[in-house]
Amino acid sequence: MSKQDLQTLKGFRDFLPSKMVVRNEAIRRLRIVFEKYGFEELITPAIESQGVLLGKYGEEAEKLMYLFEDQGKRKVGLRYDLTVPLARVAATYPDLPRPFKRYQIQPVWRAENTQKGRYREFYQCDIDTIGSTSPLADAEILAVIYESLGALGFPSFVIKINSRQVLFENLKKAGVKESMWLTTLSSIDKLDKKTKEEVEKELEKKGLMKDEIEKVFANFEKAVPDAFLASVMEYANQMGVKDTILKFDPYLSRGLDYYTGPIFESVVTEPKIGSLTGGGRYDKLLKTLGGPDLPATGTTIGLDRVCDVVEELDLWKDMKKTTTSVLVTVFSKELLSKSLEIATVLRQSGVNTEVYPEENTKLEKQLKYADKKNVSWVVIIGPNEIEENKVVLKNMSDNTQEILATDEVIKKLEKL
Amino acid sequence: MSKQDLQTLKGFRDFLPSKMVVRNEAIRRLRIVFEKYGFEELITPAIESQGVLLGKYGEEAEKLMYLFEDQGKRKVGLRYDLTVPLARVAATYPDLPRPFKRYQIQPVWRAENTQKGRYREFYQCDIDTIGSTSPLADAEILAVIYESLGALGFPSFVIKINSRQVLFENLKKAGVKESMWLTTLSSIDKLDKKTKEEVEKELEKKGLMKDEIEKVFANFEKAVPDAFLASVMEYANQMGVKDTILKFDPYLSRGLDYYTGPIFESVVTEPKIGSLTGGGRYDKLLKTLGGPDLPATGTTIGLDRVCDVVEELDLWKDMKKTTTSVLVTVFSKELLSKSLEIATVLRQSGVNTEVYPEENTKLEKQLKYADKKNVSWVVIIGPNEIEENKVVLKNMSDNTQEILATDEVIKKLEKL
Repeated sequence: MSKQDLQTLKGFRDFLPSKMVVRNEAIRRLRIVFEKYGFEELITPAIESQGVLLGKYGEEAEKLMYLFEDQGKRKVGLRYDLTVPLARVAATYPDLPRPFKRYQIQPVWRAENTQKGRYREFYQCDIDTIGSTSPLADAEILAVIYESLGALGFPSFVIKINSRQVLFENLKKAGVKESMWLTTLSSIDKLDKKTKEEVEKELEKKGLMKDEIEKVFANFEKAVPDAFLASVMEYANQMGVKDTILKFDPYLSRGLDYYTGPIFESVVTEPKIGSLTGGGRYDKLLKTLGGPDLPATGTTIGLDRVCDVVEELDLWKDMKKTTTSVLVTVFSKELLSKSLEIATVLRQSGVNTEVYPEENTKLEKQLKYADKKNVSWVVIIGPNEIEENKVVLKNMSDNTQEILATDEVIKKLEKL
Repeated sequence: MSKQDLQTLKGFRDFLPSKMVVRNEAIRRLRIVFEKYGFEELITPAIESQGVLLGKYGEEAEKLMYLFEDQGKRKVGLRYDLTVPLARVAATYPDLPRPFKRYQIQPVWRAENTQKGRYREFYQCDIDTIGSTSPLADAEILAVIYESLGALGFPSFVIKINSRQVLFENLKKAGVKESMWLTTLSSIDKLDKKTKEEVEKELEKKGLMKDEIEKVFANFEKAVPDAFLASVMEYANQMGVKDTILKFDPYLSRGLDYYTGPIFESVVTEPKIGSLTGGGRYDKLLKTLGGPDLPATGTTIGLDRVCDVVEELDLWKDMKKTTTSVLVTVFSKELLSKSLEIATVLRQSGVNTEVYPEENTKLEKQLKYADKKNVSWVVIIGPNEIEENKVVLKNMSDNTQEILATDEVIKKLEKL
């Protein structure tokens, strides 16, 4: 291995144990919510044939795809997202239950520009219901988002909701030609970054008349949910989503062209970290992607962003940085059997227990190891303690220690 | 998508929800054991530079690797196993705790001949300790294997153990030249498939003298563990591995050339499904792979094999085929709010509850859906039940049903 090879490739990351603790905990919390609502897990292969991958998302996306030939000269590539595989699965197994409610948490690969802080391997976490046209299905996605953000420990957030129908209806009423609808929305989508004046200028440049633009804003200002969207919101409320959290936002338009009905985005307001989820109804997309002609609705949760935020802001205060609860030190080869004995009893009580895996290492080094591994408790068994049938329990965070009987140690650590 | 594209590529698999239940449960059980012994999870990228991947495992292996150029013309490839990434990680982060005890459960990619029933994407599950020369580290791996197979529910298995030192010592004593040791072992390794006579003939062909071969078998017959191996076995016993399970097998030699000390293999004897884990000490390998010069010991657990066996033999009898416990049906749009109400209460009680995601579907179709999804319980709320403030709880496995108050339903389902 050359020095350069020591690093992961640009845009790729190792997740060392301390990162995995956060990641696994986030996934554990999310799974509980998804499964509570009857979503089931799906896993698909990393490699798909290019016939599945290409011609779906446009040239720009295809430039980012990892495409290659396999040993049998088959043209293949790496998964670019989780929606195309879902469409393929829906086509591959016509016998799946319908509606089909699945979640999927897997990495995808895109040769993004890493200078923008983007990763080339990142984890998507998608929840979708395919095969239902009912507002109930959309409402359920909102309920899952609501409970997920709560379960992840974000104290304050809003879920903005709007509908492509409402947006289109108001553009139509303002006299905007249908061919201009999507580009008009993409300008309006920038209102959180640009001033109203800047957006107006952009729309003029795109060829909209001044009075059309005025009417667009006037219509958006007084927009209300249509009947479908009203049902979605009502059902979501009935599923427990507070109406102070779920907010109709007539300016929300979402970038992607494929949405056909309700669209939603959640924004964490405390801490101010912006959008963590985005989604909506996409009734035509599966067919476009080569799947069956089935309606669908769903959301993505930004798992990498969630994990980064939890770590950066130390959101989970009581979260340990290791899954190991206690290190049992080894005083000497002669006293090793005592260390193994207490470790076995601790494990039987469900305490994650490591025995220092060397027979003749200085105690100081073993304590440093515990410290480096972020283990909170250390058990020391020396000749004096054995004589008294006791052990030393050291608290690594405040450096205090007490001399306890084995069963007292177990009682204490079991509780944590 | 063409018809051919509807299928996954040869050697690749989708894991539909009913398969994921088994898979996730196996992983859950294994994680608990690994973490109980202080092993922590590591995740590494799917793509590594060819400088990391090549020149490590010989030409034959490299023919099976997925190698390609990325958009920046970098020569890269997909992860072929979890040992090379471990060596790279050990080199990348010299500041990791030493010893470093990690587990890793991730897919690897090999363009294997699928006619032999092999997969091209399969999951490896590795547990290794690097940086310890002590027999304690090997013993701990044995304890993890022992507890893992128990946790997976295999009622009867043995862990065979031997040592490369013991094998080499006995070949040396029999007069076999050092250059012939590995090839002699590879013949002896076939004793579980071939007769002694066949193996003897094979060894003659390889150039061993008749009396050498006789001496080899005589030495192997009376072989005993050396001091290091005896310590490993003693420590493993002290960690709870029963000595009726851990058996010294003087003929065990394991295929791979890189082992330098104890080698072990577990064989499930009931049901008779053969080997599920294999491993040993490999003190020189990390350096050979381009990592630091650190001793190491570990094992692989055949996760795909475990899952296949659990399903084929229906080992986990009480295991549900879905994570969803109950389907709440929707009688009509008017009565929907009642369905949502009881679903919310059930979820709050920790019951995984799905509401049928349509407002106007015949009850019969909803029941068929529950059946197809393998959901065991269905709640039906019609006008009569609402009047009496009750619901119908239907048991899908025996087709019985009872009329209960909501809190009785919760009590019943909570218990399951």
